[in-house]
Amino acid sequence: MPHMTKHPDILVVGAGYVGLATAVFLADKGYPTTVVEKNCEIVEALRRKRLHFHEPTLARTLKKVVGNGFLTIIQPEPEPYQKADLIFIAIDSANRRTWQMRLEPFEQMAGWIGGVKRRVPPTVVLKSTNVLGFTQHVRDLLDNTPHGKEAKLLVSPEFLREGLALEDTVHPSRVVIGALEKGDAAPLVKIYRSAYPETVPIVQTDWKSAELIKLAANTYLAYRLAFIHEIAEFARLEGLELAPIRQGIGLDPRIGLGYFTPGLGFGGSCLPKDCMLINSNEFKGSFEFESAHTATAVNNRLLKNLIELLDSKLGGLKGKRVAILGAAFKPDVDDTRDSRAVRLAELLLKEKVQVSVFDPHLHGRDIIPETELPLAPTIETALKGAHAVIIGAAHKKFLSLKPQQIGGLVVHRLVFDYFGLLDPKKWRAAGFEIVR
Amino acid sequence: MPHMTKHPDILVVGAGYVGLATAVFLADKGYPTTVVEKNCEIVEALRRKRLHFHEPTLARTLKKVVGNGFLTIIQPEPEPYQKADLIFIAIDSANRRTWQMRLEPFEQMAGWIGGVKRRVPPTVVLKSTNVLGFTQHVRDLLDNTPHGKEAKLLVSPEFLREGLALEDTVHPSRVVIGALEKGDAAPLVKIYRSAYPETVPIVQTDWKSAELIKLAANTYLAYRLAFIHEIAEFARLEGLELAPIRQGIGLDPRIGLGYFTPGLGFGGSCLPKDCMLINSNEFKGSFEFESAHTATAVNNRLLKNLIELLDSKLGGLKGKRVAILGAAFKPDVDDTRDSRAVRLAELLLKEKVQVSVFDPHLHGRDIIPETELPLAPTIETALKGAHAVIIGAAHKKFLSLKPQQIGGLVVHRLVFDYFGLLDPKKWRAAGFEIVR
Repeated sequence: MPHMTKHPDILVVGAGYVGLATAVFLADKGYPTTVVEKNCEIVEALRRKRLHFHEPTLARTLKKVVGNGFLTIIQPEPEPYQKADLIFIAIDSANRRTWQMRLEPFEQMAGWIGGVKRRVPPTVVLKSTNVLGFTQHVRDLLDNTPHGKEAKLLVSPEFLREGLALEDTVHPSRVVIGALEKGDAAPLVKIYRSAYPETVPIVQTDWKSAELIKLAANTYLAYRLAFIHEIAEFARLEGLELAPIRQGIGLDPRIGLGYFTPGLGFGGSCLPKDCMLINSNEFKGSFEFESAHTATAVNNRLLKNLIELLDSKLGGLKGKRVAILGAAFKPDVDDTRDSRAVRLAELLLKEKVQVSVFDPHLHGRDIIPETELPLAPTIETALKGAHAVIIGAAHKKFLSLKPQQIGGLVVHRLVFDYFGLLDPKKWRAAGFEIVR
Repeated sequence: MPHMTKHPDILVVGAGYVGLATAVFLADKGYPTTVVEKNCEIVEALRRKRLHFHEPTLARTLKKVVGNGFLTIIQPEPEPYQKADLIFIAIDSANRRTWQMRLEPFEQMAGWIGGVKRRVPPTVVLKSTNVLGFTQHVRDLLDNTPHGKEAKLLVSPEFLREGLALEDTVHPSRVVIGALEKGDAAPLVKIYRSAYPETVPIVQTDWKSAELIKLAANTYLAYRLAFIHEIAEFARLEGLELAPIRQGIGLDPRIGLGYFTPGLGFGGSCLPKDCMLINSNEFKGSFEFESAHTATAVNNRLLKNLIELLDSKLGGLKGKRVAILGAAFKPDVDDTRDSRAVRLAELLLKEKVQVSVFDPHLHGRDIIPETELPLAPTIETALKGAHAVIIGAAHKKFLSLKPQQIGGLVVHRLVFDYFGLLDPKKWRAAGFEIVR
């Protein structure tokens, strides 16, 4: 008979992409896991095995692990924190308006975790977004509680891509663990080693290096995307065709063609945020990562130049109607967080443009979440009377757009297609001006 | 009997890395080729089958093709230009002080090429460094000669790495050809298709796109290197170990670990130059590539910060002795063009530091080529009485440096090893401070 070891009592705080992917993964590996979520509607939905965002694989596995009892969803209360052996913190930790860390939830959790004397002290694992030096701050919070000093603290940043949250949790390119002392990481290493094949590298380092790895990886990806957007801008200005330029550059194996496709800039919940957070001086010194500043600056310049170009093509912007097709931050998802199309819509509204936005993946909603921008109920409503059409996201559904269909609705045949989604020959033949 | 076609008469202008690699490659493929070189000492050396720089494979193949008569080396004169079918221009085309193009040699060549009426007009292929819009300028030069209008003009930039000039010419990741009209490229495509396997992609595009591809590829590589140097700077400032940080970032397959190793910044004859030239407004509009500015700025900041750190560690710089080990721009070569170690030496001299430089690959020379910096004849001379030692290039030979050997010569045990070449444990055990 095999030797039986008791599974650790696992708590995952936060039922967003990161928290749920972590929890569902561990539950599916046979670790009984509890998820804490403060939003009671989300708690109810998850208990009914319904995922509150679009992640097909995660949704399927969620059904299974809620069904077989390995995953439990609860609302916040102190007791589970005081029983858990491993506590993964995956809350939405940074304020997206001020780029400052939300300190109160960490203070509350530290108080709960450190409030009771434990025979075996727990291990706390930060998976949320961090700024450089924040883990030390959480350590200080724990140290200021009656029994928090004994808790171990680790940082293990996530590297998952939206739409592939569970896939990337199951098949990571690497796992990073930051610890004050290497031995502190043992409980987490044990779980990772049981859950992952030997080929998955585990990079063990200190807290700040682990914080940096996460922020720097996203900054690099943003920096890379800023580069190809800059090249695309020059090509647009000079009337050059981008495709052979992109090939000529990216065929160098040291450069590569992957993650090297331009559009309206980089958006989403990770890259713009981490380019800001890597330069946060909230808990670190004054070192400035120029790479992050440049990525952000090139990203902002792109929309500014687009608006100037639109202005010159329409002979003024005030009162003109512009239809934006696609509001999500990447193709074929329904997430508009830090979407470039939304940012563009907001900038156009400031110029007194009448903006109408349509996104097939946000069907049935009235406004774009987290903004007050209205959504057109149909593509026809969005296009009717438009002086210009701007592709806002490279949704596959837009590949079937037809010049005839759009030509009958707009008052001026002008399309900005920075994603290169439409066949310019076909559209130009139908009298459209296509800006790529 | 097979059908015999006459080989084109090929002229390659310039016997530097690019010109010779091109010429030797074509000669070795069976195309009788003539190289034009204005420096008569180089002409004499090449005729005696001696290469004037360090490229082992190229040197070997040069012997063969000079020996079998497929490669001829001549000094400039009009006639060969007026007989050649294909003229590759690979001269040193940009001034490294002013970052301006050297226009006179192009004017002279255009005059020679366009000076006579030809039955079959020649094809001119620019392989040299270009700035954006320069090919159009060469076209204008040709058009202003009696018969230059008929000559075809192509741009086919090289992507070879120093030390591997022939290898990279024989096995390119891609071949780029810029032409005014696609048909113009036919003679060159024919040669490339006969010389390369089908798997080598040929990217055909316009002049300016081809110019951009070259400059942008090098700018991207510099931009990538600037990023890892920036990360290394932060790690140094915070006392973090770089190796796990680099792993944690580079293990993302979209980022990668290749071409991602820090040192004293990026140097050499290509990357710093192309970061300047991509923003040259000599023949283009005012668009600014922020990526190039950032790469250059981060590269410059690194040496500035190094000098500040050295200043604080030595309690002042004036009159101190600093030994720089390695002056080449990359490991195990003898080329010091745009070497970071040389730049550092120049900056230290301005601070009244007594700098001594040693490089095993420049043995027997008195000064560093293209500068007036003296070279120490032996490593002992360089180290004697030094207050600090700075590794200037990651030459393999330095791996065998011993703390005992250096400890007996220096007056202060401080080594800056930004390349991570030395084993810090061993050196620290011998009382050295190692800054990585």
